[in-house]
Amino acid sequence: MKLSKKNLDQRLDHLYDVIIVGGGAGGLSAAVYLQRYRLSCLVIEKGRGRSFWMQELRNYLGLPPETPGRELLNHGTEHVLELGGDYLRGFVEDIQDEGETFAVKVKVGKTDSVYPVFRSKYVIAASGIIDQLPTLPDMQNVYDYAGYNLHVCMICDGYEMADKKCGLFVHTESAINTAFVLNWFTPYITVFTQGLCTVGDEMRQKLKEFGFPLVETPIKRFLGQHHEMTGVELENGAIVELETGLVAMGSLYHNGYLKGLDLQWKGENLVTDSMCRTSHPRIFAVGDLKEGINQVSIAVADGTLAATTIWREIRRASTPRRWEENLTQPTIEPIGAVS
Amino acid sequence: MKLSKKNLDQRLDHLYDVIIVGGGAGGLSAAVYLQRYRLSCLVIEKGRGRSFWMQELRNYLGLPPETPGRELLNHGTEHVLELGGDYLRGFVEDIQDEGETFAVKVKVGKTDSVYPVFRSKYVIAASGIIDQLPTLPDMQNVYDYAGYNLHVCMICDGYEMADKKCGLFVHTESAINTAFVLNWFTPYITVFTQGLCTVGDEMRQKLKEFGFPLVETPIKRFLGQHHEMTGVELENGAIVELETGLVAMGSLYHNGYLKGLDLQWKGENLVTDSMCRTSHPRIFAVGDLKEGINQVSIAVADGTLAATTIWREIRRASTPRRWEENLTQPTIEPIGAVS
Repeated sequence: MKLSKKNLDQRLDHLYDVIIVGGGAGGLSAAVYLQRYRLSCLVIEKGRGRSFWMQELRNYLGLPPETPGRELLNHGTEHVLELGGDYLRGFVEDIQDEGETFAVKVKVGKTDSVYPVFRSKYVIAASGIIDQLPTLPDMQNVYDYAGYNLHVCMICDGYEMADKKCGLFVHTESAINTAFVLNWFTPYITVFTQGLCTVGDEMRQKLKEFGFPLVETPIKRFLGQHHEMTGVELENGAIVELETGLVAMGSLYHNGYLKGLDLQWKGENLVTDSMCRTSHPRIFAVGDLKEGINQVSIAVADGTLAATTIWREIRRASTPRRWEENLTQPTIEPIGAVS
Repeated sequence: MKLSKKNLDQRLDHLYDVIIVGGGAGGLSAAVYLQRYRLSCLVIEKGRGRSFWMQELRNYLGLPPETPGRELLNHGTEHVLELGGDYLRGFVEDIQDEGETFAVKVKVGKTDSVYPVFRSKYVIAASGIIDQLPTLPDMQNVYDYAGYNLHVCMICDGYEMADKKCGLFVHTESAINTAFVLNWFTPYITVFTQGLCTVGDEMRQKLKEFGFPLVETPIKRFLGQHHEMTGVELENGAIVELETGLVAMGSLYHNGYLKGLDLQWKGENLVTDSMCRTSHPRIFAVGDLKEGINQVSIAVADGTLAATTIWREIRRASTPRRWEENLTQPTIEPIGAVS
């Protein structure tokens, strides 16, 4: 059921099989599987994750290409609730490993916040990442285009950028290398650093060899209308016309609540085995938090793998169920043998 | 485009980037990604695969739980065609490794068959498996219930069987062990062997301890109506009432066309790395053909992994695209530097 400040007291004494941090594609897929394995789970979602921002989910099999990410999330949340899963809007602040159980502390409510602690046998870290966007004086101007034709994922949207005049927005020199992959889709690339990094001679030379202009002047604003970006106006008043854009400014990882636990990291990603288990036997990581390709399809499969592995362990540790009424009879004759 | 006997000649001289054998969830997902990576692919589908038979796809995130498998396949096929992929109904008989390319021989048409040979750089084996069903005198009686409440996949449908009187249909002694996993969902299990295997004393004793009756008499027919199986009638006239059933009679693997190639197998499954590459560097395997959990979500992610890996290789081997018109200018001044 949906938990809120009003009813969460009902679950404070409950030991969940699994608490899932993050109600994106990976977390919801795990919850669907776990509930169907007849385990109890709680999904804790802070809101506005990466797939929430996707305007069109063009490469997830079975959904119409124009499906917004939030529609996937809404359907998935409904699905979990129908299966009897619990769902809470809140921000996980901390997880304590208590040996057999985890204590998960959640901040619920932006005002008059409460801080309930829920307990579970397993944790699935599905809290993902969020793409960093260019910082402009008017951030609404950025949000007007981000996720529309100002893209954040080349794998998802390279196809949409094909052969278009494309701005590549970076804030480190190494991110400029994205241009030399993006050119598979379009060679009409202008690189914008906003002067946030130093660009060495070698990189300048390479850009020149590829014909990709480098713009280091800060951006004043994106131009366009109806969520269609048509260029940028620089602080010096110059205008660069564009038809599309790719932001390659890295991601913020929602993993702060895991930092106190004994886990193996590779950068900000959790290292996992082929079933999405981290170096802690009762903590799994799915989707963008773990190493690999950041795609909805991968996150959904990760949820399947983590849930199935947890189910197998819990099942094997449980008392097997017998057909009790048959056991009260002294001898069970195979039905087929009676003829 | 859709290929058929009438127009397939147009593609006999084309070198595809990838030929995908099998238009199920894994193959279609790979095709969507490949076309979006601007590669050319041909999907060859023999029809009536495993997901075609699924009446309700209850655990794939984003689709309503009552979505039939064939709807997923139809949507996916349309999606691939919209993206410019080729699609052919046919049966792959043989694949020859020609060094740089593969020659894929297809039987098209059940009558007046033709046998075109298509060529590609890579092959994705996505032809999957099909579940074996009990063989009864009237097979239509089996098809009336298989995929409805006579299930073939415990992970998919254990939840639907929960606490119901369940028939477990097997044809080997080892498959009887499925009962001791199925009892997580329901303990009201009757095992039917139809006398197709010998059951040793140890197994008989274990079934007795669990209270699971063993029926070795052959089945005459399933009882029920409107696709709802309500029991079985045995050849000796006895009737066993049931509310649901699970068939655990193994699978047939659609992998005959791969047997002439130098590939590493584990039983009938292809061994793959974490990106779904087989031991042959240009052959990938996705979905049920490879080792792992047989689930739509996994197959869809496999398609993503295989397609992305192939794209990366083809991209790296290609001549990088430059912005030609900028190269004709003697010096490119960064636009932003002009102020």
